[in-house]
Amino acid sequence: MKNTETKYFKFLKPLHLDSGKILPPPVIIAYETYGKLNKDRDNAILICHALSGSANAAFYNNSNKPGWWDFMIGRKKPIDTEKYFVICSNVLGSCYGSTGPTSVNPETGDLYRLEFPVVTINDMVNAQKLLIDFLGIEKLLSIIGGSMGGMQVLQWCINFPEKIHSAVIIAATYKHNAYQIAFNEVGRFAIMNDPRWLKGNYPIDKCPEVGLSIARMIGHITYLSEEVMEQKFARGLKKFDFSTEFEVGSYLHYQGLTFSKRFDANSYLYLTKALDYFDITESNNLMDCFCNSKEINYLIVSFSTDWLYPPEQSKAIARALSNAGANTSYINLNEEYGHDSFLVEKTELKSVIKNFLKAQKL
Amino acid sequence: MKNTETKYFKFLKPLHLDSGKILPPPVIIAYETYGKLNKDRDNAILICHALSGSANAAFYNNSNKPGWWDFMIGRKKPIDTEKYFVICSNVLGSCYGSTGPTSVNPETGDLYRLEFPVVTINDMVNAQKLLIDFLGIEKLLSIIGGSMGGMQVLQWCINFPEKIHSAVIIAATYKHNAYQIAFNEVGRFAIMNDPRWLKGNYPIDKCPEVGLSIARMIGHITYLSEEVMEQKFARGLKKFDFSTEFEVGSYLHYQGLTFSKRFDANSYLYLTKALDYFDITESNNLMDCFCNSKEINYLIVSFSTDWLYPPEQSKAIARALSNAGANTSYINLNEEYGHDSFLVEKTELKSVIKNFLKAQKL
Repeated sequence: MKNTETKYFKFLKPLHLDSGKILPPPVIIAYETYGKLNKDRDNAILICHALSGSANAAFYNNSNKPGWWDFMIGRKKPIDTEKYFVICSNVLGSCYGSTGPTSVNPETGDLYRLEFPVVTINDMVNAQKLLIDFLGIEKLLSIIGGSMGGMQVLQWCINFPEKIHSAVIIAATYKHNAYQIAFNEVGRFAIMNDPRWLKGNYPIDKCPEVGLSIARMIGHITYLSEEVMEQKFARGLKKFDFSTEFEVGSYLHYQGLTFSKRFDANSYLYLTKALDYFDITESNNLMDCFCNSKEINYLIVSFSTDWLYPPEQSKAIARALSNAGANTSYINLNEEYGHDSFLVEKTELKSVIKNFLKAQKL
Repeated sequence: MKNTETKYFKFLKPLHLDSGKILPPPVIIAYETYGKLNKDRDNAILICHALSGSANAAFYNNSNKPGWWDFMIGRKKPIDTEKYFVICSNVLGSCYGSTGPTSVNPETGDLYRLEFPVVTINDMVNAQKLLIDFLGIEKLLSIIGGSMGGMQVLQWCINFPEKIHSAVIIAATYKHNAYQIAFNEVGRFAIMNDPRWLKGNYPIDKCPEVGLSIARMIGHITYLSEEVMEQKFARGLKKFDFSTEFEVGSYLHYQGLTFSKRFDANSYLYLTKALDYFDITESNNLMDCFCNSKEINYLIVSFSTDWLYPPEQSKAIARALSNAGANTSYINLNEEYGHDSFLVEKTELKSVIKNFLKAQKL
């Protein structure tokens, strides 16, 4: 039931990174597209994925599972592929086809692993921009992303405002704070102290499964809300031993283990580090960051039960944009699924995005 | 500068546990006392410690560091040792002198390790009651504890209401919820999947340091508030590598490592499990739990920034006690240190406890 496939854009020049390092060519960006670019080339929407996402945002790509936002993208869906040309690309540093620590270093012929340079959200966006140029798109009708995807959208708006008509930033922040960094630090500590990590040189079939599982388990706790945890997990019976008797424990173990089989531990280190570096303000006032991006139409969405990227952070973005003079809508959705609400079908997000897009015209 | 020492009460009968198992004699309870029991034996205050605490609540005991609540207990301090006879004992299952997984099993002559039976908060309280009987105290003027200590206080009030005049329950809950269990599950997973854990049979000088560090790092994040994390940890400079460059990371690593040198990994498993089992309601209404404990004077304290045991949980206890007809004061202190506020000297807790105790008379 394959009805989409990942394509690979090869950039044949060196890519300069924030760290001062250079990625030698070819720099590969894995991407998928859905729908058709119209004659006027004014119906393109770029989707930015979150930490563990891939270019496969919708439809089936050689697997039994649809893309990670399949309920949002498709025929007659909020991001309607009969109207829009939808692009999703895998971020630099990930393990799903774009150049990252699991790629071959063209200069040595070996896998990069920890030789891969540290990348930032800004680097990801600059690489993605090369793909958009390659696809011949002058201006995106919209750019949409949640969580780390939302941070990429923010960075896009700052870097390339002339290429963007409208932007949707969901459950994101403008700057990783000490809390968000702390959870990632523990995850990285767990990976880098797993004896199987071997300074990043683990054999592919012997990854640091325990460390990566722990990192993901911590992540999962932060992705859910207290409400949904309580509903989802009745307390287990007292068996008076150290088996995983509480349902929430089994759930977390399962999530951790599954993740460690589908994701690369080194990529996890790189992407969480990119998140932790994220700070569009540097030492500036947040409003000043948007002085060149005020022609874009913005929709900022947060979720009432999201405690990882709480509504206050989205509200601060919306306020700064509005004060900068940008046309800005902000909505805090009363959803119970915590940070993960943007990945849950039965929320109001679908209609909110659909209505916002309906009003956008290049 | 030693001015206190730990004593050891040996209970010479078998101790029956919630699990149905029996701890063979001697069951040892490590304890310290400060101040003098008066002639009428009506000035005794029992202090219950939290997860990683010990019997050394105050003064110096062979180390350069004072007891864990030294700012609260002592001459002219809120729990004034010139007026009160203060007792603190180490919980069953801990590694600080009371019988636990690091003790010798009298039936085999070997260390218990994982042969130690699972214990509950109720078991801890029942063992502590034997010590109070041994000390010849008919009725406690007060019993005071924070976090896991607060849960012990609640259990004391339910089990032995006739032995208690007043009770102070700080930053606690009446039932561990899915969230609280989830964080502990990840910590236990980290310990039990550390290759050095060896199913609990690690040599004392080769403990599962990484697993225990991870567990403690997760704990630390939950003990602090967002406010204090942000104040405490400026963002580090971008060094573009995987060293611990963010201050919050260094802090957590240090906390994890220090803890792994002072605490036993198996004890950590047992004590967190006891926390996770804690549920005084079982399937009853919370108010009904207190129908025999309404003669006690209660003070319930929560902290506005505590997100591990949030104010709502303390408020629910206070409401249930009040509805049950007990004389109950509830105060939510506006302190910035999160759950750990009860261990921080410069909060209002000192005067709150001092004033509450002043009003208590047997």
